[in-house]
Amino acid sequence: MKALQYRTIGSPPEVVDIPTPEPGPGQILLKVTAAGVCHSDIAVMSMSAERLPFPLPLTLGHEGAGIVAGLGDGVTGVTVGDAVVVYGPWGCGVCPACASGRENYCPHARTLGIHPPGLGSPGAMAEYLVVDDVRHLVPIGDLDPVAAVPLTDAGLTPYHAIRRALPKLVPGSTAVVIGTGGLGHLAIQLLRNLTPARIVALDVSEDKLQLARSVGAHEALLSDENAATRVRELTGGLGARAVLDFVGIDITGRMAVAMAGLDSDVQLVGLGGGAIPVGFAQVPYGMSVTAPYWGSRTELADVIALAQADVLSVRTETYSLDEAPLAYERLHDGKISGRAVILPNA
Amino acid sequence: MKALQYRTIGSPPEVVDIPTPEPGPGQILLKVTAAGVCHSDIAVMSMSAERLPFPLPLTLGHEGAGIVAGLGDGVTGVTVGDAVVVYGPWGCGVCPACASGRENYCPHARTLGIHPPGLGSPGAMAEYLVVDDVRHLVPIGDLDPVAAVPLTDAGLTPYHAIRRALPKLVPGSTAVVIGTGGLGHLAIQLLRNLTPARIVALDVSEDKLQLARSVGAHEALLSDENAATRVRELTGGLGARAVLDFVGIDITGRMAVAMAGLDSDVQLVGLGGGAIPVGFAQVPYGMSVTAPYWGSRTELADVIALAQADVLSVRTETYSLDEAPLAYERLHDGKISGRAVILPNA
Amino acid sequence: MKALQYRTIGSPPEVVDIPTPEPGPGQILLKVTAAGVCHSDIAVMSMSAERLPFPLPLTLGHEGAGIVAGLGDGVTGVTVGDAVVVYGPWGCGVCPACASGRENYCPHARTLGIHPPGLGSPGAMAEYLVVDDVRHLVPIGDLDPVAAVPLTDAGLTPYHAIRRALPKLVPGSTAVVIGTGGLGHLAIQLLRNLTPARIVALDVSEDKLQLARSVGAHEALLSDENAATRVRELTGGLGARAVLDFVGIDITGRMAVAMAGLDSDVQLVGLGGGAIPVGFAQVPYGMSVTAPYWGSRTELADVIALAQADVLSVRTETYSLDEAPLAYERLHDGKISGRAVILPNA
Amino acid sequence: MKALQYRTIGSPPEVVDIPTPEPGPGQILLKVTAAGVCHSDIAVMSMSAERLPFPLPLTLGHEGAGIVAGLGDGVTGVTVGDAVVVYGPWGCGVCPACASGRENYCPHARTLGIHPPGLGSPGAMAEYLVVDDVRHLVPIGDLDPVAAVPLTDAGLTPYHAIRRALPKLVPGSTAVVIGTGGLGHLAIQLLRNLTPARIVALDVSEDKLQLARSVGAHEALLSDENAATRVRELTGGLGARAVLDFVGIDITGRMAVAMAGLDSDVQLVGLGGGAIPVGFAQVPYGMSVTAPYWGSRTELADVIALAQADVLSVRTETYSLDEAPLAYERLHDGKISGRAVILPNA
Repeated sequence: MKALQYRTIGSPPEVVDIPTPEPGPGQILLKVTAAGVCHSDIAVMSMSAERLPFPLPLTLGHEGAGIVAGLGDGVTGVTVGDAVVVYGPWGCGVCPACASGRENYCPHARTLGIHPPGLGSPGAMAEYLVVDDVRHLVPIGDLDPVAAVPLTDAGLTPYHAIRRALPKLVPGSTAVVIGTGGLGHLAIQLLRNLTPARIVALDVSEDKLQLARSVGAHEALLSDENAATRVRELTGGLGARAVLDFVGIDITGRMAVAMAGLDSDVQLVGLGGGAIPVGFAQVPYGMSVTAPYWGSRTELADVIALAQADVLSVRTETYSLDEAPLAYERLHDGKISGRAVILPNA
Repeated sequence: MKALQYRTIGSPPEVVDIPTPEPGPGQILLKVTAAGVCHSDIAVMSMSAERLPFPLPLTLGHEGAGIVAGLGDGVTGVTVGDAVVVYGPWGCGVCPACASGRENYCPHARTLGIHPPGLGSPGAMAEYLVVDDVRHLVPIGDLDPVAAVPLTDAGLTPYHAIRRALPKLVPGSTAVVIGTGGLGHLAIQLLRNLTPARIVALDVSEDKLQLARSVGAHEALLSDENAATRVRELTGGLGARAVLDFVGIDITGRMAVAMAGLDSDVQLVGLGGGAIPVGFAQVPYGMSVTAPYWGSRTELADVIALAQADVLSVRTETYSLDEAPLAYERLHDGKISGRAVILPNA
Repeated sequence: MKALQYRTIGSPPEVVDIPTPEPGPGQILLKVTAAGVCHSDIAVMSMSAERLPFPLPLTLGHEGAGIVAGLGDGVTGVTVGDAVVVYGPWGCGVCPACASGRENYCPHARTLGIHPPGLGSPGAMAEYLVVDDVRHLVPIGDLDPVAAVPLTDAGLTPYHAIRRALPKLVPGSTAVVIGTGGLGHLAIQLLRNLTPARIVALDVSEDKLQLARSVGAHEALLSDENAATRVRELTGGLGARAVLDFVGIDITGRMAVAMAGLDSDVQLVGLGGGAIPVGFAQVPYGMSVTAPYWGSRTELADVIALAQADVLSVRTETYSLDEAPLAYERLHDGKISGRAVILPNA
Repeated sequence: MKALQYRTIGSPPEVVDIPTPEPGPGQILLKVTAAGVCHSDIAVMSMSAERLPFPLPLTLGHEGAGIVAGLGDGVTGVTVGDAVVVYGPWGCGVCPACASGRENYCPHARTLGIHPPGLGSPGAMAEYLVVDDVRHLVPIGDLDPVAAVPLTDAGLTPYHAIRRALPKLVPGSTAVVIGTGGLGHLAIQLLRNLTPARIVALDVSEDKLQLARSVGAHEALLSDENAATRVRELTGGLGARAVLDFVGIDITGRMAVAMAGLDSDVQLVGLGGGAIPVGFAQVPYGMSVTAPYWGSRTELADVIALAQADVLSVRTETYSLDEAPLAYERLHDGKISGRAVILPNA
């Protein structure tokens, strides 16, 4: 079958022909319908050989959707023909974190050599994908797989962050979304559906602010040196109760602190490599800063349920598998609007 | 192998010889080290043929501990020789409730014909037991299986109830435990370890009150017509913030309402068949009444962790498999102190 | 000044002339702009002399809005001319419940002779009202007092119930509202703004269902013998995760249990005098039934914040103080659509 | 009356004679029984004139206990002769944060010129103290005021931090306390009473570790370069789920990150001036860092309830008002064991 692989440190990914995999006992074979292109793949492909936590070649794609095409021995709970998406942050399955579905915080995965598909295990940018356990599948029914596949990361990651911030997002509160791209434009919609908070979106260009408004931001502001002051003004001086930073550089971190209120929740989600120093009297009293990671199994089911209730609008651009290297190029150059999705069997 | 089976409606259970089971793909074979004897088995054996939700014969035992003796194809996460206990309320494994480990509230189990071991599936009162999935095992290391096995129900069920009541059990609050038997004597210890609440235990005889005091109750009172008044006095008129009723008859339910305070949490755990009517101005403002069921996978891991920290003292009496019918007789007659445990391979 | 008083057991309320009150130290005098007419007043006026928990005459009106007209000694935090609504469930102010603003669950109020305005203390159906402490005022700025005043009970009471149910109301879940009148039509809107749940409204006539749909119910069904079956169908057999019963008679209670799912939250809010019996295996596993009362100070601030965000539409009919007895008659006869509001200074 | 005042930037505090205050409307006069000496007073007395947020002279003492000696007009809820402690982080009393008792996060206090006693308002290191509102008093009954007074800050501050961390502190988890002085030695006891977590205490000398063990730490380790490794070993590689840093310098912050696990809660409580940089992949996934401040009104009531249950042992040294400057000197020099308490009327 054809697959998109990252094969050589520092080189772009290549379309190659590899053997079609077979599902072992307990495993499931998916015929891939859609695979999402994510900034974190670019982060991985920028790592030096020493820092890369798994061997090459690697079939890319940690956002995957497919049709069940084969069942290993002993699999129950899905049927050939079912449409599903893949839960990516695979854990050991037996520790307390995994027992409650929070496999994204499994402390044993790395030690046991368990890697997410596309981030160590063979990923979804191939005609077929083997998933290790039925618990990592969420059925999507009639949902369009192209619209559904970004929900497995670009939807799940902000959903997880928002759930952590929910206790702060009471009526009258304000939530700020910094960065309105793949994750941010979904964060705005999730906030609208999950909370009564006023949503202020920040980004660097007017067309991105226009997208933010169109998906539900109450206010959309340029992410410049005046942004913190304007958020303070909009909140009667109180500041935001939650700031979700999908950029994650030092400058957005400083902005987050400057616009956050007392007892607020700041989450640094973006992979920009920045950090926010938290010290007493250096940030507002009671402010927390968290660096969350992906989401839980139940949270993915929640996000799919929201999509099935038809309240999420996912902006996508589609590419064939042969065009996948181009999609990464365009993402790298900031030219993708919303999320790029690969169709390996189109 | 030898097994204790309930074979005929209305008859006592019998020790019989049946084929030793083999684990299929994904399944695990346990050599049973201990199996707990529970009131709910007696409730099941009192049902008419029409109400019994599964066919006979049934190997009893929904509290099970064992040593991993064989692995079906594709099993990872345990090794032959591991000491484990079994999580009993098996669910479908894929719905949102199961994804977060709350298989006790899986809405699909019954429809799919999935039954807990000993309550529909072959149970632990046999030399060997097949467990359907590795996720239903919790490792216990060096814990004594006799002391550990009651934790899977008699420990897990009160733990789950207490976790629901935790937000009420702040410093200065009072929790009442009605019934200090198998579940109740563990509830007292769990409350001591999990909350700063004052614990009042109620039971019908002085020796049971003595047990309650010895495992940590701050007060132990006869469960008579004065009990509610005494709890009100002990709480300066405020009443208890939580009442856990491990008897569950109408009279204990009325007592619970009479001793509960505003915004309190009453849980009817016992299988006595009673009910508590909840109506506005008929119970204290803000009082909740819940009928919880067993517990979640993570909660079982928590209870085992408490046992490993050596803070739980489980009172048990042990019986060989041949003596198991006698153990049920004694339980029925109220003659067991703590929990009866069967040793099928002793 | 003119006031509407309940003066004689069993007689209708009367418009009388009484002395205008003066604020003592720490108290605030309001010129009343609006006062809500509530079913619970009718319940109070139906009580026998023995059950009535306070002496007559009583100036009615536990929903009040006004303009600050005078300040007693030592009052800070409001200014003459401020527009406010009144938090009604007055507590002692110093116990732990009151310290966290949950004065609705103050265990000392009754003992200390502290009564809500209009339910023991002089109420808002008068030209002027004295409020005992600045903590019982919530500023409303430019909000129309006629639309704001029902929020103090008909908005706050469902808001408090919904907040208790929030953990259940995840994406994909269903909430049922039984009774779409004064409280119910606000409950629907609050659920839409606070949760991603699907909302099913039940009532007894098609015009009430039409109101329910117009304020946001996803489904509106006749509250008849088929209702529980239809809710089960709409939820794929799972049942509702929350049922809010604003009628509160035995028949709606039975309906609530029949349509509720596992681990669900049923709240009996209406004053219909019914009760729901909760027993193991008599209701779905993990189901809770609560009889909540009114709401907390912070929750009233939250509801006002929602109104200021312009997301609540309150249906009202207005009456002068002289017409107030007629408003109670019409409410008694089921002829009020939404909430009747008295304008004592109109 | 005699009072200890900070009068001149950079000079030590002095015992002076000032007029005895009178309570205005709504205020309460206390005859002070005890006042706690705190590191934060030293921090205030180290500020330059520009940074000091209030004018001098200032009567010190933000931990206060006393006997009600006089009531201003309109005060209800306390009686002359009542023994009380003072809740220190005074807020506006009417905003949503204050309405729920979280006056420590009132966003209006500073703007309105409202300061805690001893940190802007006249404090407890005087024969008499005026408290602005009855809501800022918590009755202590028969508790020894010397043991009770440190609870208002040295007890309340760690209690608030621990409450934020409670969801992480499940059975099997580990909590680390860095610094076992005034706040830390109470944190250890609070953790023992509120959670089932294993407690590891860190400090720089063996006698401090001995104190930590004597008040309940399961393990006590030298706070050196091996500490993080030892915590990882003790936790089977998982790290701590909560780290409470009562020192708050950069080096303890780095230690906290090095010993914290996935999805953990780090709180920087100490005033050491350090900071913890939080960035994606720079700290464990899901780790939060918070800089909490003091605690809520309800939390102070909780801490007092724990003291009344006789589960807290507060180490104190007492001084007369005339000796108070010496107490500050000794605190500055690290010579106080536990908490220094001034007895202004001894």
